[in-house]
Amino acid sequence: MTSIDLNADLGEGFGRWRLTDDEGLLSVVTSANVACGFHAGDAVTMRRVCTLAAERGVRIGAQVSYRDLAGFGRRAMNVPPAELAAEVAYQIGALEVFARAAGARVAYVKPHGALYNRVVHDEEQAGAVVEGVRLADVTLPVLGLPGSRFLKLAERAGLPVVTEAFADRAYTDEGTLVPRGQDGAVITDTDEVVERSVGLARDGAVTSLTGERVLVRARSLCLHGDTPGAVELARKVRGELESSGVRVEAFV
Amino acid sequence: MTSIDLNADLGEGFGRWRLTDDEGLLSVVTSANVACGFHAGDAVTMRRVCTLAAERGVRIGAQVSYRDLAGFGRRAMNVPPAELAAEVAYQIGALEVFARAAGARVAYVKPHGALYNRVVHDEEQAGAVVEGVRLADVTLPVLGLPGSRFLKLAERAGLPVVTEAFADRAYTDEGTLVPRGQDGAVITDTDEVVERSVGLARDGAVTSLTGERVLVRARSLCLHGDTPGAVELARKVRGELESSGVRVEAFV
Amino acid sequence: MTSIDLNADLGEGFGRWRLTDDEGLLSVVTSANVACGFHAGDAVTMRRVCTLAAERGVRIGAQVSYRDLAGFGRRAMNVPPAELAAEVAYQIGALEVFARAAGARVAYVKPHGALYNRVVHDEEQAGAVVEGVRLADVTLPVLGLPGSRFLKLAERAGLPVVTEAFADRAYTDEGTLVPRGQDGAVITDTDEVVERSVGLARDGAVTSLTGERVLVRARSLCLHGDTPGAVELARKVRGELESSGVRVEAFV
Amino acid sequence: MTSIDLNADLGEGFGRWRLTDDEGLLSVVTSANVACGFHAGDAVTMRRVCTLAAERGVRIGAQVSYRDLAGFGRRAMNVPPAELAAEVAYQIGALEVFARAAGARVAYVKPHGALYNRVVHDEEQAGAVVEGVRLADVTLPVLGLPGSRFLKLAERAGLPVVTEAFADRAYTDEGTLVPRGQDGAVITDTDEVVERSVGLARDGAVTSLTGERVLVRARSLCLHGDTPGAVELARKVRGELESSGVRVEAFV
Repeated sequence: MTSIDLNADLGEGFGRWRLTDDEGLLSVVTSANVACGFHAGDAVTMRRVCTLAAERGVRIGAQVSYRDLAGFGRRAMNVPPAELAAEVAYQIGALEVFARAAGARVAYVKPHGALYNRVVHDEEQAGAVVEGVRLADVTLPVLGLPGSRFLKLAERAGLPVVTEAFADRAYTDEGTLVPRGQDGAVITDTDEVVERSVGLARDGAVTSLTGERVLVRARSLCLHGDTPGAVELARKVRGELESSGVRVEAFV
Repeated sequence: MTSIDLNADLGEGFGRWRLTDDEGLLSVVTSANVACGFHAGDAVTMRRVCTLAAERGVRIGAQVSYRDLAGFGRRAMNVPPAELAAEVAYQIGALEVFARAAGARVAYVKPHGALYNRVVHDEEQAGAVVEGVRLADVTLPVLGLPGSRFLKLAERAGLPVVTEAFADRAYTDEGTLVPRGQDGAVITDTDEVVERSVGLARDGAVTSLTGERVLVRARSLCLHGDTPGAVELARKVRGELESSGVRVEAFV
Repeated sequence: MTSIDLNADLGEGFGRWRLTDDEGLLSVVTSANVACGFHAGDAVTMRRVCTLAAERGVRIGAQVSYRDLAGFGRRAMNVPPAELAAEVAYQIGALEVFARAAGARVAYVKPHGALYNRVVHDEEQAGAVVEGVRLADVTLPVLGLPGSRFLKLAERAGLPVVTEAFADRAYTDEGTLVPRGQDGAVITDTDEVVERSVGLARDGAVTSLTGERVLVRARSLCLHGDTPGAVELARKVRGELESSGVRVEAFV
Repeated sequence: MTSIDLNADLGEGFGRWRLTDDEGLLSVVTSANVACGFHAGDAVTMRRVCTLAAERGVRIGAQVSYRDLAGFGRRAMNVPPAELAAEVAYQIGALEVFARAAGARVAYVKPHGALYNRVVHDEEQAGAVVEGVRLADVTLPVLGLPGSRFLKLAERAGLPVVTEAFADRAYTDEGTLVPRGQDGAVITDTDEVVERSVGLARDGAVTSLTGERVLVRARSLCLHGDTPGAVELARKVRGELESSGVRVEAFV
């Protein structure tokens, strides 16, 4: 029986501000990418999300970012590798306290926003994130795009790697993401997202922007949590996956 | 044979800015209070100080603070207890990554600046710091002023407590610190500081501002690291302690 | 004919996060307290709110705060007077750029959150805020509580002072606010808030918590903008004020 | 008689940390690039530097930066143009308060660090900085590298432009800076720096890395203020310029 992990970004408020429906998403996903304070996420929120995640058996992942609260981590930065590695480790360590206090552990690391996109191609920054993860724990899995420099360097460094796919993003014939900003890059039709989720999870395949069937290997599906209706969509995806005979479970 | 621990604040730069002579102080002290990013201390500095401290066998302590880079943690803040506890735990966790990567552990926690002063008397904030420490590790020693609310609550909560004294601060007849700002509160004469260090370490006693001999129980002496000549003074203190038959060693 | 100003806090998002319905509120109020980046408010938001306010003829006020994004400016801080004064001036200057670019000016200053509460009684900080305002402009009006140290010192320093009242807060028999946290301190019933608004604006009076009629002199009413239904309530208040023969207009 | 402006970065401390010898440099330079809080520079420092500069008749310039205290503004960031423009204006406005309070005005704008380098070639960001300057004041001069996109766009937008040269940096045969990191890029010999200063100021020429004489048009020379001996070197440069018949005076 095929199984798939569902991950989403959580705890992306800061102080007075809220963004993600953490409680709602934690009732659906199997892996929670918890913001660690650099693009979002204050200590109180991190603690609360870890407690809730542990209670529900949802895996806790460190969603590490550039230090950029004002830009929500969405502005690429030329951070020197030694700084980036140390900042990644710092964030993982901070989250680990709350995971442990809740009786769990940080189970994986996923870069956020501009850093996520940067390490797809940037050798130096990808290597720095890998070093940062290894500083924290040399056995910690990382989550990323199949074919990315990040996953390649992580694998070479001995870290377990987990590939993910996006049911609400268009794919090229080569199985890579159509860049945001390009026409049709983001799929907003709910039914289509649900259908693509099943295709990705059960068949490891998706229809490309040009109509081709392309293979996309992913052990996890990323669900977006910061849009209206995010929780409802996540529930539909999960329901349809289970109806289609896909077991929804954490990858670790 | 009597023994004493010597602690100092380290890693108190931030990014481009440096303050403490970390290498110099690490050659003298037995316990390093490492800034964790809230009043000072970036991730690169934290990593470097932890590595150096571990190499020299110096204990690593988390110097936790209010979130206040602009004020260097010296401005008292009415942080609600739940926030303060979580922020303390966050800082300890972040430092723990670098301590572990260096083959060591965070061995104790010491509040910084305005937070240090606040938890002497403030029940609520003292309790919050204790809770924060326990979130990170229920066996972690805390360093503070004898007789403070902080140490009392820590003891009650089962945390090991370590008392400290200041050789460069005047004491009242009751054995408490003369508040800064009051005449004679800070002792700047080097020889006097050295002499008081020996008295505090060997005899557990110091001459008060009025000339009385008062008992001050301390397992650690705090040396200030952010003044010119700090390292030289620290060396003199350590040399004189050892000449006087006091063993200088970490409290854990 | 009696007139009253309506003020509300605006632009209280930061980067990715939104809080206040700025467009909605700008269609109702006559004075916009614009966050200046210390407790909330990024440069893009400040620019947008100033542009919208100027288009609608709404006065632009600098809502100055402690430097505390993580705490939304709600945590009292012992900021030394010289720092506080300079930080207040900094915020006013930053906002002034956007006000001028929109063809307007910063028309007044109102402290936010913990700073607002602090300067009611704290002589030193009240004086520092006054100094900060005067650094920016010695003719700039300030908005605050009648009877507060802040308004007294501002008046003494030659600044125009504007008193404000809160229709959704209970008053003591002495005409001061019942502290939040005390039973009945906040009035949530919409009709009651509307009715008290009219009483405050037309009659300069309100019913105290004990049922007494007390006089409260206010040239401005503060409407809260960060609650659900804030805009709708503001519209009702304004509508009822106008129906009752009160002219709603900016105080300058 | 030839004249030249001398500019240096000032006020580059933050809170507890100091970097530049502001008093010393203000006794030598004619233009002070004052940090505005985004890469360095707190409100108290900004106020103090403006007061001192005004007393000495030194021009006050806004040294605007990416929002990056942790990286001292040295990490290039992909800030969207609308954000960058608003952030530039914000910084200028904040400084203007202190310049005015000191009886002066912000007399020019100079980008700092990574932003300075970025706008040499990056059309979009150069345009955003120009827009930010114009938001603050459509007549404000900007300081930058001859031939940069920044100065070209500024000129096209009607802003006065001022070119600057660096006596301690090597030049290519084309009259552009040899990139840092390349051998010989930075000139550390004091006498050579002094000699090149005179050549640049009096003759508008400098010897390139390959030994060619190349023309470099500059109305201002940038002196570095964050190195040991910076003030002494600045004095020598100024002394030698004056001995060589060059008048040292602000460009405005």
